[in-house]
Amino acid sequence: MLADDPLGAHRESPADLTPYRTAFARIDGDPNQHLVVAVRDGRTVGTLHLTVIPGLSRRGAARSLIEAVRIHADARATGLGTRLIEWAIAESRRQDCVLVQLTSDATRVDAHRFYERLGFEASHLGFKMAL
Amino acid sequence: MLADDPLGAHRESPADLTPYRTAFARIDGDPNQHLVVAVRDGRTVGTLHLTVIPGLSRRGAARSLIEAVRIHADARATGLGTRLIEWAIAESRRQDCVLVQLTSDATRVDAHRFYERLGFEASHLGFKMAL
Repeated sequence: MLADDPLGAHRESPADLTPYRTAFARIDGDPNQHLVVAVRDGRTVGTLHLTVIPGLSRRGAARSLIEAVRIHADARATGLGTRLIEWAIAESRRQDCVLVQLTSDATRVDAHRFYERLGFEASHLGFKMAL
Repeated sequence: MLADDPLGAHRESPADLTPYRTAFARIDGDPNQHLVVAVRDGRTVGTLHLTVIPGLSRRGAARSLIEAVRIHADARATGLGTRLIEWAIAESRRQDCVLVQLTSDATRVDAHRFYERLGFEASHLGFKMAL
């Protein structure tokens, strides 16, 4: 699913899973990382990665960051994306986060409408720098 | 400095430091959190919080997130912000992050120019939801 995406097609290498396995072990060993996978009829059809980030601002509040939201092409428009995001919001609340945040590529207009329908506000600009 | 800010004035409580001390201990105990403080003549004049986030996408690459960039009013326009961000970029590279990212409130136009001068691209929208 990471590679089956207009933006992801050129930055993944599904033929060699070694770097993904190493990264998975690192995520799995960190209590602030929550990688959820949606499985339907034995097939993985969705992913979401939630990171809980402790912080000093807002009276020492934690926030959470949503990354890696991917829905398999066969499972789009089934409400699965909504269920994944709603899980992330509920889990963030459960962990006493005061804020949940994500960035969405400026070209993903459908995604922006999706997040706004779920109650997110596009209040910020998301700045990135490739290293 | 958190409270001495148009956006922060109403969401901090400097009179009671207990929640900040609890949050500091949590940050201090997490190897992915890096809280840097700039001190000049014995006074704290700047802060930056860098979080390293392991991930599966982009061939299992880590990314980093910059939060809590604050410069004391007395130390603005001295190049300190640039030095803090440049430290964060260098540290992210040192930790093999392929991407460094941050969000900036849409109203902070001066901050946007600052980040663009340093090489960031406002390629994303930043969505937030208060919990």
